[in-house]
Amino acid sequence: MNFSPGPTNLPAAVEAEVKKLFDSERMCSMYLSHRSPEFISILEETTKLAREVMHIPDNYEVLFMHGGGHGQFAAAPMNLCTSKEDKATYLVNGTWSQRAAEEASKYATPIVVSSQNKDGSFTSNPSLDNIDKDSKYIYLCSNETVNGIEMHRLPKLGPDSPPLVIDASSDFSTKSIDWVESNVGLLYACASKNIGHPGLTMVVIRKDLIGNQQNICPGVFCYKTNVEGENLWNTIATFNVEVVGIVMKWILQQGGVEEMETRSIAKSSMIYDLIENSNGFFCTPLQDKSIRSRMNVPFDICGGDQELTKEFVIKGWEQGIVGLRTKTPFGVGKLRASLYNGVSVENTVKLATFMDQFMKCKQKS
Amino acid sequence: MNFSPGPTNLPAAVEAEVKKLFDSERMCSMYLSHRSPEFISILEETTKLAREVMHIPDNYEVLFMHGGGHGQFAAAPMNLCTSKEDKATYLVNGTWSQRAAEEASKYATPIVVSSQNKDGSFTSNPSLDNIDKDSKYIYLCSNETVNGIEMHRLPKLGPDSPPLVIDASSDFSTKSIDWVESNVGLLYACASKNIGHPGLTMVVIRKDLIGNQQNICPGVFCYKTNVEGENLWNTIATFNVEVVGIVMKWILQQGGVEEMETRSIAKSSMIYDLIENSNGFFCTPLQDKSIRSRMNVPFDICGGDQELTKEFVIKGWEQGIVGLRTKTPFGVGKLRASLYNGVSVENTVKLATFMDQFMKCKQKS
Repeated sequence: MNFSPGPTNLPAAVEAEVKKLFDSERMCSMYLSHRSPEFISILEETTKLAREVMHIPDNYEVLFMHGGGHGQFAAAPMNLCTSKEDKATYLVNGTWSQRAAEEASKYATPIVVSSQNKDGSFTSNPSLDNIDKDSKYIYLCSNETVNGIEMHRLPKLGPDSPPLVIDASSDFSTKSIDWVESNVGLLYACASKNIGHPGLTMVVIRKDLIGNQQNICPGVFCYKTNVEGENLWNTIATFNVEVVGIVMKWILQQGGVEEMETRSIAKSSMIYDLIENSNGFFCTPLQDKSIRSRMNVPFDICGGDQELTKEFVIKGWEQGIVGLRTKTPFGVGKLRASLYNGVSVENTVKLATFMDQFMKCKQKS
Repeated sequence: MNFSPGPTNLPAAVEAEVKKLFDSERMCSMYLSHRSPEFISILEETTKLAREVMHIPDNYEVLFMHGGGHGQFAAAPMNLCTSKEDKATYLVNGTWSQRAAEEASKYATPIVVSSQNKDGSFTSNPSLDNIDKDSKYIYLCSNETVNGIEMHRLPKLGPDSPPLVIDASSDFSTKSIDWVESNVGLLYACASKNIGHPGLTMVVIRKDLIGNQQNICPGVFCYKTNVEGENLWNTIATFNVEVVGIVMKWILQQGGVEEMETRSIAKSSMIYDLIENSNGFFCTPLQDKSIRSRMNVPFDICGGDQELTKEFVIKGWEQGIVGLRTKTPFGVGKLRASLYNGVSVENTVKLATFMDQFMKCKQKS
């Protein structure tokens, strides 16, 4: 039972399918030429399934790129701002949007609208009033994994607003996106949270925004180059693409992205409710329930008591519960339960049961 | 029997080990957090094995990066040239070094020394005389997969020469490298030819060259950032790293890189000798045997006869021989047998036997 913030497990049924790839009559995509008819067919199928799952309109291109989320932190401004003088608004509500704004300052003039508190924490989203209309785009991270802040729906800023650029690395395929109404220009998701494993980033780019890249944009990060090369300008991460296809197929079989959202709400509510009803034994930093992440539930035990936290982690591990404590610079005594698509409702129940039992045991003693 | 120029099969024993990862008690690295102790141990082991196999001295760092060879086409000049005015000599002996020089012109001033013939082909290496001494580095591709030109040993240009930057994507781990005597500054290899599968690039950088990157260098391509982050600045392609480790272990078990070279010579000689002795039925473009690639043997049948070529490919396919014809812009009627570490001597014998039988059959009729 892996509650890691990622990379992490995929749904059990997906993992079983992945394993089968190594027993299949057809050569596993790990070993296929990216230009072979067999792989081209896998690529087309994965793209089709991803479009279907996420209802991606025809005026968007789907790319599978190298470089992870960090690569896109650079790629977005290099492709959408024609020079360093071009402005882009960065809505900063946590660690990752902050890092994205820093990277963007190499290639553009980011206008940072931050909700950071004086103590460095984030417990709210930045204001959407007074957005700079001359910005080439408005950047946001729809789920901040470290801070546990999620935008359950993308903002709809109206037709005169610059397009949105969205880092959806940790919530992609867990809820629907209104591409048109939210004026989405670019969205990307590294694969290793909800849709696959490390080494691949899915990019969705609106066609009218392609072709404005700066001269210094590396070919591997140039949307125009990769669109023209039909994802094969350079060697695509073949196996990773096939895994994403398996995940997308699974999502469809389960009932689509709407069902993923239903499960995400159910799973996260279970943990948040338990925390709320623990009389302060467990505590989560966000008071505003409307922005609490369904993907990553940050919490501590008795205000971050180190002994109790250690005991909790060890006892959890003994029951097969892992990934709650990570090495992210997240603070001593802080825990986080990540509930991506790969985490089943059943396993979330087990986590909640364990948390409840641990609390009751400690309250007795 | 896959003779594809890559991505392609790994040694059969390696593929068997990869398959076992999905049956192991330990969670497969696909699903491990890159910061977990389990993965850190895999990363350290892979690095250690790669250092051992390639005899990499201590004053070099080993990185596992995103972005493939094309990513490094941009990364090398961005990291080693402090501005666009800095010069770098590009030895161009085929398709890939040509593309590298083009990409470099975004970040530096490449001085191209090319051996391209008037008809666009490459059949020799560029002259090493009169190399610009003010260049920040001398770039070369040690094996040109499309053109079938290999430098079996890296040049030793003396201590006053700028350091070498080497694209060893298609010959890394198939022969030894004299890092010091050849004054190697930087070497990289995308994984999908000899050491793994697509989505990972191994980079070896001499420590004194780290830290001169341009401001516009994306973090994911910055050697300093990745060295300081100990390969975990961003999410590393976890599974791909484990596969490289398995390949490295296999190479050691087989007798090391020296044994890989012995086999490469044996395999390629078998095919070249057959071509030489075919009285022109088969033809390979390179007359200079000292630069013939041991990795990729380009050839044609009766001057590129389209009917015969088609028949050859189909008959080969019927015997389980694939990958000889690819979609690279390589020319109609051109074939290429790629003989990476994953191709066994036994399978090369089968290819040679098939070629010989096909020729004899046609010569009879």
